[in-house]
Amino acid sequence: MAIGIGLLGLGTVGTGTAEILLTPQGRHPLLGEVILKKAGVRSLDKPRKVDLPEGCLTTDLKAIVADPEVDIVVELLGGIEPCRTLILEAIANGKHIVTANKAVIAKHGEEIFKAANQAGVYVLLEAAVGGGIPIIKPLKQSLGVNRISRVIGIINGTTNYILTQMAQHGADFADVLKEAQDLGYAEADPTADVDGGDAADKIAILASLAFGGRIRREDVYCEGIRTVSAADISFAAKLGFVIKLLAIAERPDIEEEALQLRVHPTLVPEEHPLASVNGVFNAILVEGSPLGEVMLYGPGAGAGATASAVVSDIVHVVGLLHSDTTVRNQSEKTLNPLLGCSHEHYSPILSIDTLKTRFYARFLSQDLPGVIGDLGTRFGNHQVSLESVVQIGLQDDCAEIVVVTHDVYEANFREALNEIKGLEAIKDVPSILRVL
Amino acid sequence: MAIGIGLLGLGTVGTGTAEILLTPQGRHPLLGEVILKKAGVRSLDKPRKVDLPEGCLTTDLKAIVADPEVDIVVELLGGIEPCRTLILEAIANGKHIVTANKAVIAKHGEEIFKAANQAGVYVLLEAAVGGGIPIIKPLKQSLGVNRISRVIGIINGTTNYILTQMAQHGADFADVLKEAQDLGYAEADPTADVDGGDAADKIAILASLAFGGRIRREDVYCEGIRTVSAADISFAAKLGFVIKLLAIAERPDIEEEALQLRVHPTLVPEEHPLASVNGVFNAILVEGSPLGEVMLYGPGAGAGATASAVVSDIVHVVGLLHSDTTVRNQSEKTLNPLLGCSHEHYSPILSIDTLKTRFYARFLSQDLPGVIGDLGTRFGNHQVSLESVVQIGLQDDCAEIVVVTHDVYEANFREALNEIKGLEAIKDVPSILRVL
Repeated sequence: MAIGIGLLGLGTVGTGTAEILLTPQGRHPLLGEVILKKAGVRSLDKPRKVDLPEGCLTTDLKAIVADPEVDIVVELLGGIEPCRTLILEAIANGKHIVTANKAVIAKHGEEIFKAANQAGVYVLLEAAVGGGIPIIKPLKQSLGVNRISRVIGIINGTTNYILTQMAQHGADFADVLKEAQDLGYAEADPTADVDGGDAADKIAILASLAFGGRIRREDVYCEGIRTVSAADISFAAKLGFVIKLLAIAERPDIEEEALQLRVHPTLVPEEHPLASVNGVFNAILVEGSPLGEVMLYGPGAGAGATASAVVSDIVHVVGLLHSDTTVRNQSEKTLNPLLGCSHEHYSPILSIDTLKTRFYARFLSQDLPGVIGDLGTRFGNHQVSLESVVQIGLQDDCAEIVVVTHDVYEANFREALNEIKGLEAIKDVPSILRVL
Repeated sequence: MAIGIGLLGLGTVGTGTAEILLTPQGRHPLLGEVILKKAGVRSLDKPRKVDLPEGCLTTDLKAIVADPEVDIVVELLGGIEPCRTLILEAIANGKHIVTANKAVIAKHGEEIFKAANQAGVYVLLEAAVGGGIPIIKPLKQSLGVNRISRVIGIINGTTNYILTQMAQHGADFADVLKEAQDLGYAEADPTADVDGGDAADKIAILASLAFGGRIRREDVYCEGIRTVSAADISFAAKLGFVIKLLAIAERPDIEEEALQLRVHPTLVPEEHPLASVNGVFNAILVEGSPLGEVMLYGPGAGAGATASAVVSDIVHVVGLLHSDTTVRNQSEKTLNPLLGCSHEHYSPILSIDTLKTRFYARFLSQDLPGVIGDLGTRFGNHQVSLESVVQIGLQDDCAEIVVVTHDVYEANFREALNEIKGLEAIKDVPSILRVL
C-alpha cells in the first residue's frame, strides 16, 4: 500500500518530519509505504536543510489539499488561518489530517471534528501537546478506561526553561526572557507562552480527551509567569517548593461532571515527580481510578521530538488503512472510535472561585508588633486557616511576611485578601501563588 | 456492538479487571459494549470481592476458550502452563487474546504470535510490562518511528522496593526481603524477582518491540540484587549514585543490527531521571533519533494499575473491531500491522564481554603501602583506565578500596580482575557493579 503525504509548512518541524519520511531505514516498517508527495511553502527559493524529491516543493497550498495523490495532509503552519480553512478543505476532499496546531484545535476543534466525522476521516494531533511525549494516544486509548480525576501538565517548554533558569541562577524574569529569546527558546513576541495561553490551549485539548466532553477554550482560567519573582522562587525553595507553570484539569467531585480548568504558576513540593522536570522538558501526570498516578516525561519541543510525534500519527493512519478497507470508502460509521472524536456536548466548567487549594502569599507591611496576629485574624474571619506565617526579612523598612494556607476556597481567600489590603500596616502584596 | 469477555483467573488482577468491566460509568464509552461472559477459577466456593453476573463463574477453563459468546480471552493465570495451551486453543477458536503474562510471551511468543497471525487475531499484552504504565502501545505505535538506540527500565517493583528500603534505612538485603514478603510485596519464593528473571522476561518483550526482531529469552544477560550490600549503597551515595536494578536493551552501533541485552544492579547518577523512581514504581526510558529521551513512569504492579492496562487492551480490540469488519471474518491480511507481530527473524545478540561500560568495584586488601598503585597498574595493563581509586575505610584490619573505571570493555575488566584476585594483598572483591 502506498500512502501519499502532503506537508503544509516546511519550518523546523516540517523539515524534521520530511527528514524522517525520507529516511525510513531502521524505523517502523510501515514508513516504507509512506511517500512524501508535496511540501507547501511560502518561497521556493529559500535554502532548505532537506533534499526533497523533485517536484515536491510548491507554494500552492490549496492544490495540496485537493491533490488526488495525497492521502494524509500534515498541517505544520501554526496559527489559526489559513490553517482552519485548509484543514476543512482537505477534510472535504477526504484527506486524513495530522496536525501539531494546538491553537486551531483548541479554538475550532468542534467544527473540524464534526467535518471529519461526516467525511469519515481521522484528525490526529499527537504533536499538539507535549512535543515528542506520547500523551494524546495513551489518553485516548489506554488511560481512559480509568475514572480520571486529574491531569496536571508542565506543557510549555519556554516558561519551564525560564523558571528553571530563574531558580538555578537566582535571575530575574526579564533577564532570563531576554536570554531565552536570544537562544531561540522564546519567541520575539512571548505573549502566548509567558501569559499561559499556549498551556491553556493544550490543557483544553487534554481535558477534552481525559474527561470526554468538549471544552470552550475561554473557560480555562489563566495566569502567566510575569509576576513570579526571583524572591518568590528563593522563598519557595526555603519552604521546600519549586515554582512551575502548571496546567491542571480536574474533576473535583468524581460523581459530578463539572471540571476545574486552570493554568497558573504553582508551588510544587520538591519531592513531587513534577518538581524535577526542568528546562524545556515537559511532563504530564494523569491520576485515575483504579490506576493511580502515571507520569509521561520528555522533550516538549524541538524539531526532532515534534516530528517524531507527527510521524507517529502518520504511521497510525497507515496502520488503520491497512486493516480497514471501509475507511477508505469514506463511510462515516467505520472510524475507529478510539481515535475519532465523539464528543457531543460541552463539559460544565466550575468558576475559579470554587477552587479549593492551598495559597502562598507574600506581604510587605510596616514593621510593627501585632501585624502577624492581625493577618491571622483577618484570614480566620473568612474561614481561611493558615499553615504558617513567617516573617522572612526586612525590605526598605518593611517587614516581608510569607503566609501559606491550608486548603481553602479561592473565593474566601480573595475576600480575606481584600480586607487585608485595606489595613494601614499592609503596604503591598507582591505575590499570590497557589500550592499543589 | 456487544463484545464478550472470557476471563481466565480471578486473582488480584482478575478481580480488578472484573471490577472495571462491571462499572463502565465514567470510563471510556466503548466499555459500555463489553460484557463479562465468563470468569474461570479453580474453586467456585472461594469468597470473591466482586459481584459477578449469575452463571459467570466456572472452573472449566477449556470451555471458556471455546465459548462462542466469548470474543476476547483475557489470560491472567500467570506462569507457563496451562496458559500456553489455553492461549493457543483460544487463538485456534478465533478469539483475540489479552494477557498480562510476560513469562509465557517471553518464552513462547514466537509460537503464539505465529498462530495469532494465521488466525487473524490480536494478542495484546500492555499489562505484561510496567503495570499501569502505557509502554507497549506507545512503543509499537508512536516511538517506533524513531531509530531507537536504547531502552532502560526499572521494571521490577519488588527489587526496586527492596533497593529503595535498603537505601532509605541502611538495611541489609535479607532483612528487607523478609519485610517485603510480610507486606506482600515479594513472593514466598522471590527467585524470579530478586535474581532478575522477571525483569529479563520484560526487557526481552520491550527489546523485541523497540528493535523489531524476535528475542531469545536466554540471550538476556542477567544478574540479580542478592549481592548488593548496604555498604555498597552507602558508598555509591557518597559518590553521587543510587543503585537500581536496570534492564537495558541497547543497539550500541546504530548502523548494525546487533543488540546488548542485560539486567543487572547499576549505579545511576543521582540527577538521572531514573534515580528518583522509588518503591514499587516502575519507569521506562526510551532513547531514539530524532526524538531524544522519553520516560514513562507509574505504578509497576498492583491490582488496579495492572487491571487498567488489561482493560486498555480490551478496549483497543473493541475499537479495532468497530472500524474493521474484515478482522471479524478472520482474514489473515487485515490485522492492523501496528498491533500485530510481524517479526520474522531473531535479533543478533552481543556477548556481555563486548559491553563497554563503567564499573564500580570494592576490594578488601591488606593495609599495606603500594596496594593502590598495584591495582592501578594491573588495570592499566588490560586497558582499563580508572576514574577514581579511593580507600574508604578499614574493615577487620583490611583496607576497603573502591575503584570506579572510565568506559571500558567488560572482557578487559574481567581479565584485569582475574589478575588482581591473584595478588597476595587482595583478600576479597565483595562487589562489582556497572555504572550507567
